[in-house]
Amino acid sequence: MSVGTSSVRETEIGRPVIVQKYGGSSVADVEKIGRVADSVVAAKQAGNDVVVVVSAMGKTTDSLIALAHSVTNVNGSRSEPARRELDMLVSTGERVSMSLLSIAIQARGYHAISFTGSQSGILTNDRHFDARIIEVRPHRIEDELSRGSIVIVAGYQGMSYKREITTLGRGGSDTTAVALAAALEADRCEIYSDVDGVYSADPRVVPEAKHLPELDHAILQEMAEAGAKVVCAQAVEWARKRNIVIHARSTFDRSKETIVAPPGTKQLAGARAVTGEAKISFLSWSGVSSSSVVEGLQRAGLAYKDLALAGDRGSAIIPLLNVPSADKAHDALRAALPHVEISNDVATVSVVGDGLAGDGTALGQFVAALTEAQATPRALSAGPLRITAVIPADRSAEAQRAIHHVFVK
Amino acid sequence: MSVGTSSVRETEIGRPVIVQKYGGSSVADVEKIGRVADSVVAAKQAGNDVVVVVSAMGKTTDSLIALAHSVTNVNGSRSEPARRELDMLVSTGERVSMSLLSIAIQARGYHAISFTGSQSGILTNDRHFDARIIEVRPHRIEDELSRGSIVIVAGYQGMSYKREITTLGRGGSDTTAVALAAALEADRCEIYSDVDGVYSADPRVVPEAKHLPELDHAILQEMAEAGAKVVCAQAVEWARKRNIVIHARSTFDRSKETIVAPPGTKQLAGARAVTGEAKISFLSWSGVSSSSVVEGLQRAGLAYKDLALAGDRGSAIIPLLNVPSADKAHDALRAALPHVEISNDVATVSVVGDGLAGDGTALGQFVAALTEAQATPRALSAGPLRITAVIPADRSAEAQRAIHHVFVK
Repeated sequence: MSVGTSSVRETEIGRPVIVQKYGGSSVADVEKIGRVADSVVAAKQAGNDVVVVVSAMGKTTDSLIALAHSVTNVNGSRSEPARRELDMLVSTGERVSMSLLSIAIQARGYHAISFTGSQSGILTNDRHFDARIIEVRPHRIEDELSRGSIVIVAGYQGMSYKREITTLGRGGSDTTAVALAAALEADRCEIYSDVDGVYSADPRVVPEAKHLPELDHAILQEMAEAGAKVVCAQAVEWARKRNIVIHARSTFDRSKETIVAPPGTKQLAGARAVTGEAKISFLSWSGVSSSSVVEGLQRAGLAYKDLALAGDRGSAIIPLLNVPSADKAHDALRAALPHVEISNDVATVSVVGDGLAGDGTALGQFVAALTEAQATPRALSAGPLRITAVIPADRSAEAQRAIHHVFVK
Repeated sequence: MSVGTSSVRETEIGRPVIVQKYGGSSVADVEKIGRVADSVVAAKQAGNDVVVVVSAMGKTTDSLIALAHSVTNVNGSRSEPARRELDMLVSTGERVSMSLLSIAIQARGYHAISFTGSQSGILTNDRHFDARIIEVRPHRIEDELSRGSIVIVAGYQGMSYKREITTLGRGGSDTTAVALAAALEADRCEIYSDVDGVYSADPRVVPEAKHLPELDHAILQEMAEAGAKVVCAQAVEWARKRNIVIHARSTFDRSKETIVAPPGTKQLAGARAVTGEAKISFLSWSGVSSSSVVEGLQRAGLAYKDLALAGDRGSAIIPLLNVPSADKAHDALRAALPHVEISNDVATVSVVGDGLAGDGTALGQFVAALTEAQATPRALSAGPLRITAVIPADRSAEAQRAIHHVFVK
């Protein structure tokens, strides 16, 4: 009885919980950290409990990885840094920005406290440098919110069940934010970056790209997996499975946003976008058993996607976004798969949206657009929400413009 | 029976354990980290189990503290960063250098693994930015040593019993090294820096300063507390209480060293040195109860030493080495102690060694030397191993030279 009463009372006094995530460009220097602190304080003043997930300042992560590679130089020959040590190294980046943001918020007269991924209860598997969140136990965050504190969390990192520090791969801070929003039953998750939402293509490549005010999770997940950068794919997948509404916004220009919601919420069918991804290798083989290829990839420690098989022929795309060094990954591929053709000067272009399967009309239009853009596809894969082609890397921009022109009205 | 057998066997195959500590200037860049890696590998090749404690690269800690102060700037007015957040921030410095050194050692073909202070089992009290080690539980280090790994430990940091990250104050990496040497029952503890041991004075101030090849713990502890920088006072105290022999060496020039050992080991009596310390405030009062002064210092969160009392008059020295900002400490002193005279343009000079008490001869010589150096003492304190004077800061160098000339033969 008393438990029930106490539970009701907690609900009555409960404030809405908002999780905000600020990307590296939003906290790149002292002045920007101050502006983010103002933005966080405004959300608190509006009556919310606020949890803020931060990325490392600017290009810190890239600089730290470069430093790691440079210390492997022994008399001119270099080796691959161990992923476990890379995680120890790069996880410091978010710890710097989280404590600076916490100090900046305190200087504005508000209670704030920063937590590492481990202190935030972000538990992951033990795949270093590319870990997956398996559970979130945000007890310390909940305690601090109930005391009225603004909680700052180091994004991109967690702790494995072996009590080792792990990192979540590119865009991992987005995943931290969405996973915390789900665990805290937040009212919403706001992802702030240097762009004001999701566009129908990369505006730097396709000038006609349109801002997309609303998008459904499944479409954005396909877009992110095919190269769109605004919110990382793992984060969107987490949001889709747990019905978390994401607001993708620009930190310093709030005139527009993209709301990513479950498809039931609104009629979002037909939203279409074009994406490109250059950080891949393309494998193709003939006269080699596919199982030996898959075993070779496992030995090389590399993931694959869009695997296509027919007898002893096949092809696959190797995403290289989350490997510490693309050069070393190429070396590992060549060593593990001596009889497979490996192409590195390739890219993928994709169109993503509802109704792409149907009668093959879309696939025909897609190939025609590529041909017109002189981007002969090396491979094609088509699903209900996405068509992807592997093309020469130097035709990627032209191909994206051609596909956008045909598919996005 | 089987337990006993196993224990004997462990001793039989046990290798000597060496703990090495490398200071910030020794790991200041990629090239120096490589040379430290070579040095560590040489110790391993010589048949030892090797644990390496590292400081942050170069001036990283100072840069991070400066960054923390700059983000407190809100419309031109600044506040003091919370020490808990400062610890979150500055503890990243050693984590960067530890993982880079681990990667550099791995690149040389040796097993290496890095551990944070918390993973190394360094447990502290909860006094942030100036914590004390209360216990060391190096289970993970022992496991890795038994597997043949070289273990790299982030110096200067630990975890409080509240599971918060703490830092140990200036020179804290020395304390990490000595505390680990004691807990691991190491054969010796080697403290590497940019100087080849302890001198009878700071050679930059006193050109006649002599290298001291041997020194007893108690003398070096007094020297460190009075301003000598080679090994931090807390580390020497820990070594003294646990009989840890310290070898103070230069990382890149091994021609000399200072061995710091218990007095029983050798006849070290009479070793004398001169030190200076400028990072202090000097308090003096009259007509104020000493208890109100002590309460005021506690409110200001500041430690004191050389407290001298006589009726309602008194004086004390406030060490400012481990406060995040000397300016803020001055403000806090003025606010907490409105009726106390606070002098900031002062320094201490000390002579340290055996046989300074005796019949007062040493004190007389000390005051005469100060007078000759036109450094009139504002206060004096004399103990069995040390005589200290508070003098005007701008007379410190001259006073150190004069005292050295009289006391060090």
